Amino acid sequence: MSAVTPATWQSRPAPAEARGWTDRAAEVAAILATDAAARDRAGVTPHAEVRLLKDAGLVTLLGPVAHGGGGQDWTTAYQVVREVAKADGSIAQLLGYHYLWNWAARLVGTREQWERIEAEAARGRWFFGGAVNPRDADVVVRDEGDTLAFSGRKSFSTGSKVSDVTVLEGVLEGTDDHVFALVPSDSDGLAFHDDWDNIGQRLTESGGVTLDHVRVGWDSAAGYVDKVFQPRVYNTLNVPTIQLVFVNLYLGIAAGALETAAGYTRDTTRPWLHGGYDRAVDEPYVIDVYGGLTARLWAAQAFADRVAEEGQRLHDDPDAVTERDRGEFEVRVAAAKAHATDVALDTANRIFEATGARSTATAEGLDRFWRNVRTHTLHDPVAYKRREVGRYVLTGELPTPTWYS
Amino acid sequence: MSAVTPATWQSRPAPAEARGWTDRAAEVAAILATDAAARDRAGVTPHAEVRLLKDAGLVTLLGPVAHGGGGQDWTTAYQVVREVAKADGSIAQLLGYHYLWNWAARLVGTREQWERIEAEAARGRWFFGGAVNPRDADVVVRDEGDTLAFSGRKSFSTGSKVSDVTVLEGVLEGTDDHVFALVPSDSDGLAFHDDWDNIGQRLTESGGVTLDHVRVGWDSAAGYVDKVFQPRVYNTLNVPTIQLVFVNLYLGIAAGALETAAGYTRDTTRPWLHGGYDRAVDEPYVIDVYGGLTARLWAAQAFADRVAEEGQRLHDDPDAVTERDRGEFEVRVAAAKAHATDVALDTANRIFEATGARSTATAEGLDRFWRNVRTHTLHDPVAYKRREVGRYVLTGELPTPTWYS
Amino acid sequence: MSAVTPATWQSRPAPAEARGWTDRAAEVAAILATDAAARDRAGVTPHAEVRLLKDAGLVTLLGPVAHGGGGQDWTTAYQVVREVAKADGSIAQLLGYHYLWNWAARLVGTREQWERIEAEAARGRWFFGGAVNPRDADVVVRDEGDTLAFSGRKSFSTGSKVSDVTVLEGVLEGTDDHVFALVPSDSDGLAFHDDWDNIGQRLTESGGVTLDHVRVGWDSAAGYVDKVFQPRVYNTLNVPTIQLVFVNLYLGIAAGALETAAGYTRDTTRPWLHGGYDRAVDEPYVIDVYGGLTARLWAAQAFADRVAEEGQRLHDDPDAVTERDRGEFEVRVAAAKAHATDVALDTANRIFEATGARSTATAEGLDRFWRNVRTHTLHDPVAYKRREVGRYVLTGELPTPTWYS
Amino acid sequence: MSAVTPATWQSRPAPAEARGWTDRAAEVAAILATDAAARDRAGVTPHAEVRLLKDAGLVTLLGPVAHGGGGQDWTTAYQVVREVAKADGSIAQLLGYHYLWNWAARLVGTREQWERIEAEAARGRWFFGGAVNPRDADVVVRDEGDTLAFSGRKSFSTGSKVSDVTVLEGVLEGTDDHVFALVPSDSDGLAFHDDWDNIGQRLTESGGVTLDHVRVGWDSAAGYVDKVFQPRVYNTLNVPTIQLVFVNLYLGIAAGALETAAGYTRDTTRPWLHGGYDRAVDEPYVIDVYGGLTARLWAAQAFADRVAEEGQRLHDDPDAVTERDRGEFEVRVAAAKAHATDVALDTANRIFEATGARSTATAEGLDRFWRNVRTHTLHDPVAYKRREVGRYVLTGELPTPTWYS
Repeated sequence: MSAVTPATWQSRPAPAEARGWTDRAAEVAAILATDAAARDRAGVTPHAEVRLLKDAGLVTLLGPVAHGGGGQDWTTAYQVVREVAKADGSIAQLLGYHYLWNWAARLVGTREQWERIEAEAARGRWFFGGAVNPRDADVVVRDEGDTLAFSGRKSFSTGSKVSDVTVLEGVLEGTDDHVFALVPSDSDGLAFHDDWDNIGQRLTESGGVTLDHVRVGWDSAAGYVDKVFQPRVYNTLNVPTIQLVFVNLYLGIAAGALETAAGYTRDTTRPWLHGGYDRAVDEPYVIDVYGGLTARLWAAQAFADRVAEEGQRLHDDPDAVTERDRGEFEVRVAAAKAHATDVALDTANRIFEATGARSTATAEGLDRFWRNVRTHTLHDPVAYKRREVGRYVLTGELPTPTWYS
Repeated sequence: MSAVTPATWQSRPAPAEARGWTDRAAEVAAILATDAAARDRAGVTPHAEVRLLKDAGLVTLLGPVAHGGGGQDWTTAYQVVREVAKADGSIAQLLGYHYLWNWAARLVGTREQWERIEAEAARGRWFFGGAVNPRDADVVVRDEGDTLAFSGRKSFSTGSKVSDVTVLEGVLEGTDDHVFALVPSDSDGLAFHDDWDNIGQRLTESGGVTLDHVRVGWDSAAGYVDKVFQPRVYNTLNVPTIQLVFVNLYLGIAAGALETAAGYTRDTTRPWLHGGYDRAVDEPYVIDVYGGLTARLWAAQAFADRVAEEGQRLHDDPDAVTERDRGEFEVRVAAAKAHATDVALDTANRIFEATGARSTATAEGLDRFWRNVRTHTLHDPVAYKRREVGRYVLTGELPTPTWYS
Repeated sequence: MSAVTPATWQSRPAPAEARGWTDRAAEVAAILATDAAARDRAGVTPHAEVRLLKDAGLVTLLGPVAHGGGGQDWTTAYQVVREVAKADGSIAQLLGYHYLWNWAARLVGTREQWERIEAEAARGRWFFGGAVNPRDADVVVRDEGDTLAFSGRKSFSTGSKVSDVTVLEGVLEGTDDHVFALVPSDSDGLAFHDDWDNIGQRLTESGGVTLDHVRVGWDSAAGYVDKVFQPRVYNTLNVPTIQLVFVNLYLGIAAGALETAAGYTRDTTRPWLHGGYDRAVDEPYVIDVYGGLTARLWAAQAFADRVAEEGQRLHDDPDAVTERDRGEFEVRVAAAKAHATDVALDTANRIFEATGARSTATAEGLDRFWRNVRTHTLHDPVAYKRREVGRYVLTGELPTPTWYS
Repeated sequence: MSAVTPATWQSRPAPAEARGWTDRAAEVAAILATDAAARDRAGVTPHAEVRLLKDAGLVTLLGPVAHGGGGQDWTTAYQVVREVAKADGSIAQLLGYHYLWNWAARLVGTREQWERIEAEAARGRWFFGGAVNPRDADVVVRDEGDTLAFSGRKSFSTGSKVSDVTVLEGVLEGTDDHVFALVPSDSDGLAFHDDWDNIGQRLTESGGVTLDHVRVGWDSAAGYVDKVFQPRVYNTLNVPTIQLVFVNLYLGIAAGALETAAGYTRDTTRPWLHGGYDRAVDEPYVIDVYGGLTARLWAAQAFADRVAEEGQRLHDDPDAVTERDRGEFEVRVAAAKAHATDVALDTANRIFEATGARSTATAEGLDRFWRNVRTHTLHDPVAYKRREVGRYVLTGELPTPTWYS
């Protein structure tokens, strides 16, 4: 692809250091882009790509500088996810989920727990996966005195085979309390299935997982002190934090679609036989397609950036987060997600109008953008995101925190 | 799929005989649907499916009754294409193109020629392919006295390997005159490539073809009498006639998408965890998605049916067709195509909102509807169809007949 | 306005007689168009316009030929409404409602009743209004032996002051039974308010009405025999029949918007300073706007026409109408209405893109199309129309007959 | 209107001082809102409203603190325009144009000129109008030695009768050079017509103006030194600067539409008879309408805010502005305008779905939002804004500075 104008607008006048990281992400993306279509078709487990993320320092982006981490905040993490997603939606999803699981210690754990985990993770360049999928509340955690034993099944487990560590989640037997704990991904009793075969996000290794007495010490039960969970509002920031990963994933894929298509139009698309133009880039309808799609995408990017900044202010002072803060942030994220979903689907669908018939060759792989967006945007029904926003505007009601709102 | 309400509205109060044919097409579609997703993935040349079309009588639908044909007109042919497309867009495209190539004798040939060809085709249940793609004007036809020799290359040749006969097209050497002629698909010098590998319409065998001195008698040069072509307006009806095949192809695929999705929603989709409904079919947003998509699709179907009737009045009296008749028909078809393109893409894109995350499993194959529509709607830029309509409305200008307008 | 190409597509290959009526309606429309914008601003009660409708024979279009009526069916009535609506949405609404109220005798009454009413109406060229608005169930009907007395209030009463006769509706005291009856509009106790002042459909005289002991004989209680109502499915066809009037009203207004705008673009709009074109009609974006809007509008017109034909088959044999027939017709009408609403709003909103800044002068009155569509499309929430369609497609459920479904 | 949740998202974490100004603008808006619909209908020249703007300090917002001005920058000015536009699009347009004409001295003039004008304007609380409309290049400026005389006609002159001073613009006789100069609005020879009667923005006093030898000293010819103009790139920032006023005007009107509608839905809209809900705010379709519209509007607001910040960086160092800086800013503004146009039209059109039939009463005035947006968004064709963006994305081409790009 010939490089002209990036569709991703770094709308944030970011500090130089943050820009350094997005530049690095762009370099990673350039490498990933060279064979993204082919890897998508082949469906090979992305061990090499995770190694690339580690070598580039992106895996440890949020980690403490003292232990080799990048020391960045979520606004930069979101930009990095978006940048990587331009080239490869699957790898960007793995990375974005990793950021959340890595951050889970801080969201749910005690200070002692998260300081330890973040230090070790940064030093060891751990890649995080998660066996957390609350739609199946079918992992039971048994209290065995000093240890806990997780048993059951989760339908989806993003990361799985490429992860070093996995966040487990289950319900404490005989209670309604959820327990999170981190275990090595090669723990006894933890079996990843090979059953992720979907139309998009094909390399995310999001298959099922079976837990058969996976043991972990009580001291690893995040946020538990003396077997009692210490709740605070900040715990519930997990949903808007990961949903904003989704938003940036979609916008990155859309930007990748637009840039890839623009390159194709410039380099390959022939002007229409009866159009009266010498170059495809001069045809009014082609220009109009790009102009319209770009305007919408830039707006969505600006919106996502703003919401990320709003969220960062909450992450900066976790103990101060009120229910109203959390609720309003969730509403913004819900709006950003509803909007990004529309924009990304529309972009991935319509680029073809401006690339033409030959661009549907399988080898070009231009359909992967649509397949990727279409697949992940179904994570939870976007209609319920619009509902959160609509209720808030109409009655001021804030969403009740659940696993999805 | 559970059968409830067909999204395809047989809006035409069609005579019983015609309805018999669409019912038969629906039976064929039901058979094709059972493994359509799997065949799409496998990409096997559809010999068996063409045989099914022949056995059902659909291949000879337009043929003379006296020679075993169905004796139907284009309004029924379009309905049949639409019905088949609900299950399998590739097979519907093959069938629709076949109808056009079969009819090409009548569009371009002399009465003696088309009567002979239609009789033989019906008796022999010929399946027609075409090596006609006017964007590559690179097949040269040499006059060798009694015979003509076609040499050159076409990038696309729908039908190719599954056809019995192929319509060739080229430019008579030293002139600007085009010649059409029909040859057996296994003629010497005719080589079909195996290079069709696109994201959609995967089973159409639309690869390239090489012609190396493919010989045909002058008497087979369609419409030529004593080596001179006998033009009439009716010749130029080829474009709106095939473009209306496209329209019905798209609408059939869209109806298939909608019906398949509705079946999935009924049988498989789980109500949303936090929605408060026991069944997915009761969720307001799900109902709204289907209501909105169905309304648009029905409108598009009614429009296509009307235009088909308008066209049939021209086919019924070919010698009477004036340039104005032809031009206005072309404008209607252009409008129907622009509209059907939007509706079909939108339908194929949005069904997933109402089927949910698990419906993206590759095994379900729900993405094939979008891939199929997305691929074929790029045949020629739809922006130029809107241009035809806009010019007509603004200035009364009728499109100049070309290969695409 | 310069006449070039009508945006209203008479898609139905209608018999010559029906075409005669739509031609006549077009002539009426041409007269109405000359001062439609000015009359809309002035808001004068349209006595003269109703007289024009009578003189043109449009008021008696559905009436029996033997008594001076046109003897036409609903398919023609809908076309006439659409044609008149191109010039003046208010007058078209009055006419369309008149058709329904005139027909109400047949929908609800006994044969003796409707034959008498239709004969008298045709002979006297009665213009019908209606004090029927079921959202206010606040008209009570008292049984006073031989007579009935209607008392109460209706918020909306289309036609009112320009009508000769008015259909009353109320609930029989002490029961849940509704009674319809026809009275002269100047009956004692019937008072039309002057309180219709809305942003659109300004000349429809849709103000409130007060009924103070308006008396009518029991023999005029439609469908009652010996004080007992004789129900049949055909009664409930009132809703889809009038809703299809709405559909054609919207499509007529949209066609009027498009044609008026096209005339303005041709005659008045200047090409853009920096566009490089000599005429506005040559600018690609202008052509594209008209091409796209026309394609959608034609589709909506074809859909409305089909549904009208489907409905006519029910009107042709009222006693044979089953609940399924009625339900499926209602679903089609619901779909047509949802679709027409979108198309008409979009058309009326977007024409300005192609007419330019100066076309917003109040004197041009181009905004009346949007104001008219916007106002009437809120008659009942279109979301519930999509719900009817969605439920039908998903579960086969037919709408329960109410005043709105 | 009951106050719940503002649709205008102050997405920028603005400094307290700037927030003070937007709060003040909100107070002004609250006053304007009380009779905005009535004033719109009455069409009275808004002398009182301009006085309100002066008294609130909004007129002198950009002026130097030393002379009584607010000392704010453009990011705040845009927010203020947006806030005022929520209540009254006309007054917001007057204010936004005023800001530009006030700033014109700095864009075009010498340092001596703009320092003097800004000081005097702040001290005198001047309200600026402009007789600048480059589509009519028909004002001729004659060099009469020490003075210049402007003669001719402009079709549109926003502000006119409510302004204290007016920016004149014309072409220096015998050259292609434009001259700007500021004169008292009651200057001899300056006659404002009373011919602005359009469907929207009715109170902007945008009628024509005639100039008959309006005299001004050469020292007032902006940017001229010894009768020679001193060009720099910053001159050409007038277009993106005012176009971003437009963007915020549209978004403010849209936010006003949404908030006003939400208040109506809460307080007045009745739940649908057959919907099964007790309150309109609980109906799923109502919630969905607000959710969807709000998400899009917030995105547009965030985009506009980002672009304003980008522009402010240019205003902060005018002499450093390069052609690339200017071009990229123009492209962002073009994108923001294309996007805001779509969003604002859609919002103003669709709110009615959620307010219902009775909300079309003229007294409610809910249509003014659509009329206002529809009118001003035609200022210059938005298709050419998309063209600027499309060309930039495809080929990197920057727009050539004109009066509109």
